[in-house]
Amino acid sequence: MSSHSAMPPVPPLTWDAAHLAAWSEPHLANVEAALSRWVGVDAPVLLGDAMRYAVLDGGKRLRPLLVMAASEAVQGRPAAALRAACATELIHAYSLVHDDLPCMDNDVLRRGKPTVHVKFGEADALLAGDALQALAFELLTPAANDFEDSVDTVPPAMQALLCRLLARAAGSQGMAGGQAIDLASVGRALDEPQLREMHRMKTGALLQGSVEMGAACAAKVAAPTWAAMRDYGAAIGLAFQVIDDILDVTADSLTLGKTAGKDAASDKPTYVSLLGLDGARAQSRQLLTAALAALERSALPDTNALRALAHMVVDRDR
Amino acid sequence: MSSHSAMPPVPPLTWDAAHLAAWSEPHLANVEAALSRWVGVDAPVLLGDAMRYAVLDGGKRLRPLLVMAASEAVQGRPAAALRAACATELIHAYSLVHDDLPCMDNDVLRRGKPTVHVKFGEADALLAGDALQALAFELLTPAANDFEDSVDTVPPAMQALLCRLLARAAGSQGMAGGQAIDLASVGRALDEPQLREMHRMKTGALLQGSVEMGAACAAKVAAPTWAAMRDYGAAIGLAFQVIDDILDVTADSLTLGKTAGKDAASDKPTYVSLLGLDGARAQSRQLLTAALAALERSALPDTNALRALAHMVVDRDR
Repeated sequence: MSSHSAMPPVPPLTWDAAHLAAWSEPHLANVEAALSRWVGVDAPVLLGDAMRYAVLDGGKRLRPLLVMAASEAVQGRPAAALRAACATELIHAYSLVHDDLPCMDNDVLRRGKPTVHVKFGEADALLAGDALQALAFELLTPAANDFEDSVDTVPPAMQALLCRLLARAAGSQGMAGGQAIDLASVGRALDEPQLREMHRMKTGALLQGSVEMGAACAAKVAAPTWAAMRDYGAAIGLAFQVIDDILDVTADSLTLGKTAGKDAASDKPTYVSLLGLDGARAQSRQLLTAALAALERSALPDTNALRALAHMVVDRDR
Repeated sequence: MSSHSAMPPVPPLTWDAAHLAAWSEPHLANVEAALSRWVGVDAPVLLGDAMRYAVLDGGKRLRPLLVMAASEAVQGRPAAALRAACATELIHAYSLVHDDLPCMDNDVLRRGKPTVHVKFGEADALLAGDALQALAFELLTPAANDFEDSVDTVPPAMQALLCRLLARAAGSQGMAGGQAIDLASVGRALDEPQLREMHRMKTGALLQGSVEMGAACAAKVAAPTWAAMRDYGAAIGLAFQVIDDILDVTADSLTLGKTAGKDAASDKPTYVSLLGLDGARAQSRQLLTAALAALERSALPDTNALRALAHMVVDRDR
């Protein structure tokens, strides 16, 4: 336990789990309703079914909650935050569908259910993923007559900024690039900076992007606040992956809702294989401290939800 | 030849092939240079190689030329047109990469070269396609400091509109949706309206989207002009697919640069299987007439390039 005693002190959490749950509940309900309204509804029948199966009724919705919390912290526009929240979840969902395909991780279980290609076949899974990525950008660029509320709209310049942030987080220098490095790294030794860079891209970029997109829902955010939000997003993005590496070793498949022990079995470099279990845990606490410190620097009056989400990322058991 | 004599008269072409080639040449050079500058350059090495292999040095670049011609017709902004042109080609290129995968068409030859998954493996082909789609939206949303020229920029509202048009053309109600219908239609009889709807989505949506994106490069386009451009795009979009169906039967693989006779071999419904070869040819001439008539209605002073491109679509042999 020596590495535990060496951990930096983590500032106390103001909100407890019940408080976070109470804050999350209406946001999650809004996101679920919006996804159900927007995903796959006018698509050809099988494709639409596959898209909805991939997205609805599953997952922690961490990325949408980060968007919502960041947007609230900067007093962002609710319509923009809801669309940005759904868009980040669509990118996440499409990445899981493609990641589970036989030519990638070849996984048959996700969130305790058969994966999309097991249920709908590989071709429709491939196309559903492709269509979900396009839909993410479609949600971010509503036309004037797409708004029910004439006041709470998403101004065009905000639409463009949200698309830019999402495209960069999802693409070859973000999520897709990280997955390519992950693929190439199987059976190879990475040092800590290489592992961090892979994780920053593969998982961190979209989590950080979610925070940035939330912040982009306000018309104007001061540069130091923007920088602090970016730092917060980067820290929890990496912390999320460190915890993922830990859970792959310590949790069982039933709790995870996906196959546990896959990284070790496939000889992938992870934070646990590099730093050991205690070292990885210490790393996750350091990143939590860094995330909370960034929120202190943000000069935002209310960062309770963002603080609580940072704790949730590090304390989760699935 | 009875169906030929029943064809509607096609107005004469003002530009000959040499004139179209002279107009295309500098645009194609610009697009190639831009794609080479923007695609896969900062991506992880293998992914970047796969992205560049999929995009560079190949293809007719019909979608970029449509963007350029439409933008010139409305006196659009050159920087916007170049980015829109490249974005449409990236969406087209990613769709080919995914379409060629073993779980889809399982094709090994494209533009006379091994397909991306043959050369780089299925996983990297999948990721390269995903990253190309994200890059399309990234190209459409440059930040202020991404412009070399402080005058010829892409205003944020134009960025948002371009993203909206591209997302709708690429997604479940456009290209990806059409591919899903195509997949589900193998071995099934479609009537002409069903076949037209499938083709409108699978190929037509992105071609029409290219014309619309070109038109969107001007700050303001009158509603009747916009409607005429849409009609032009819809007509050549469908014509393109009718000709594709014809070439699948009449051309050889070497000329096509891809495997000929695939549709008949896989029992896919096509315009030729539905209308016969003469009927399909008559259909393509009718669509050409409709496209040219739409340009007449556009009230634009110079539609020579758009007219010549419409002829090219229908008269092509590959």
